[in-house]
Amino acid sequence: MNIHLGIDIGGTWVKYGAIDPEGHILFADRAPTRGKEGQAATLAGIVDCARAMIAWADKAGHQPVSVGIGSPGTINPRTHVVQPPTPNLTTIIGVNLAEVVERATGLPTAIDNDANCAAWAEHKYGAGRGIDDLICITVGSGIGSGFIVDGRIFAGPNGNGGELGHVTIDWQGPRCPCGNHGCLELYASANAVVRKAGDAADAAPAGTLAQLRKRDNGAMTVAALFEAFAAGDQEARRLLVESAHQLAMGILGAVNLFDPEAVIIGGGLADADTAGFWLKQVADRIRSYAFSAEGKNLSVGKAALGNDAGFIGAAALGALLVRGESD
Amino acid sequence: MNIHLGIDIGGTWVKYGAIDPEGHILFADRAPTRGKEGQAATLAGIVDCARAMIAWADKAGHQPVSVGIGSPGTINPRTHVVQPPTPNLTTIIGVNLAEVVERATGLPTAIDNDANCAAWAEHKYGAGRGIDDLICITVGSGIGSGFIVDGRIFAGPNGNGGELGHVTIDWQGPRCPCGNHGCLELYASANAVVRKAGDAADAAPAGTLAQLRKRDNGAMTVAALFEAFAAGDQEARRLLVESAHQLAMGILGAVNLFDPEAVIIGGGLADADTAGFWLKQVADRIRSYAFSAEGKNLSVGKAALGNDAGFIGAAALGALLVRGESD
Repeated sequence: MNIHLGIDIGGTWVKYGAIDPEGHILFADRAPTRGKEGQAATLAGIVDCARAMIAWADKAGHQPVSVGIGSPGTINPRTHVVQPPTPNLTTIIGVNLAEVVERATGLPTAIDNDANCAAWAEHKYGAGRGIDDLICITVGSGIGSGFIVDGRIFAGPNGNGGELGHVTIDWQGPRCPCGNHGCLELYASANAVVRKAGDAADAAPAGTLAQLRKRDNGAMTVAALFEAFAAGDQEARRLLVESAHQLAMGILGAVNLFDPEAVIIGGGLADADTAGFWLKQVADRIRSYAFSAEGKNLSVGKAALGNDAGFIGAAALGALLVRGESD
Repeated sequence: MNIHLGIDIGGTWVKYGAIDPEGHILFADRAPTRGKEGQAATLAGIVDCARAMIAWADKAGHQPVSVGIGSPGTINPRTHVVQPPTPNLTTIIGVNLAEVVERATGLPTAIDNDANCAAWAEHKYGAGRGIDDLICITVGSGIGSGFIVDGRIFAGPNGNGGELGHVTIDWQGPRCPCGNHGCLELYASANAVVRKAGDAADAAPAGTLAQLRKRDNGAMTVAALFEAFAAGDQEARRLLVESAHQLAMGILGAVNLFDPEAVIIGGGLADADTAGFWLKQVADRIRSYAFSAEGKNLSVGKAALGNDAGFIGAAALGALLVRGESD
């Protein structure tokens, strides 16, 4: 069978896997990202992931026909070179990773931003299947997002677009490392919510949040925040409602600009929300504050592909190289 | 000569005019919008504008070949019907104005949202000529905007997109009539700035702003605000800087989502800014807070076509009906 290989480059791990033409995962693995060993080692590590998949395919009797790469940073749409900022992995800046992998493997190789790959995966095979206008948001250490417009990844003429995490939701807010002020990511990312939960634990040392932090050896986590909420802690509830409201405010701006048919939310905060309380808060706010009839009935749901979305989407983008854009 | 007719429907006036195939204005006039006389009178008034242009063309020896309409509200891209909200003109809701005009005149008639028409005019014949990715903003009583993406008007699959005025810049902000909270329009529109100038005049009855308001029979205006600024009034300066910052924050969100090549700003606040002080404040902030290399060099300039942009753009959209989309 012809199969498609995908590589999702993160700051700590390179996740990779092979999919069949219908998007089913046939193989998946990961390797440490060798970012601290310099550029040559980083690139060799990425190429090794492709080679590992090719070796597996050889044994399994499959024929790899394409590779796709999901990378941090902006990918220049003309040169395919990775552009800064990539705060967690600087050794790939200025490199055309697709060319590197294509040269090493002989396989046609596509590349796009990692959040765009994840959005493409949800659009092709996940919660956004069949939906051509879609905002896909990952609420993790930061807020990543990929926009599907009219059935294609939308990132603007220079690839800098689709950055929902860096939309201002407080014009008087603090400066963000990106250069802007009051960015959504500063308020509603999992890191931001955990930081606020830590502040709440400091302020109420006898409270549930402080007790859970103590139990967890001093580390505040998203899981502990949801645990405190489930136990009825009002401060945990307040923090979840506040972050849902802030996220909804950022998403609403994008809804009023892009008029999507669906919003899909994944990442650590969505994954930990087993009761669906936080996601319902986000969805209810988006729908009740939207101005259009379509916005008031907007589909807001949970991402389906989890951490695999990056390499699945990358592989699916690679598949376009050999199956044609119309696929 | 074959000419194209444009009609720009506002709450108070219908502006209309004819352009030649290069976008030059051959004729322009306006008539009161008959919104308070009911639907039949409103529609008759709009048709009369088209007929007035046809009568003029007949005498001038020109051949009208198309009509375009710029309308308040969202235009459903499938049915071409005007959808709410259109707070200043409710008698056109639910009507396919293009069909009404086409039936009355026999000319192929296009319709789009008025802000989209203005953006299209700037893209085709104004400050955005030759620029395929463009945000065009009108800072007047509200904040209108039109987005050109890859050489086409972008408003999303249901026509609800491109509403920069309703992007949240304060997640704790007050409710906007649109249903959202903390919308840019509430802070940085000309109306909002004039309201703040009025508050400043109340707070300092001996100040320049209060004196100018008294001179102007109790009415605060954008012109008076800029006059106070030119006279060295620090409160006027502070208000202009604050509104420029707020506008820049809203625009930056859209820049980080759309990655445009240029931002064009028009409307009452831009027009009154004869010294270019306010516009420079907006432009400097956008460039210095943008994260991408392209954003840091973004072209931010003043709209070129003023109040004529609406009917020019409408006429130019009508022209596409007879010249083909590729024109």
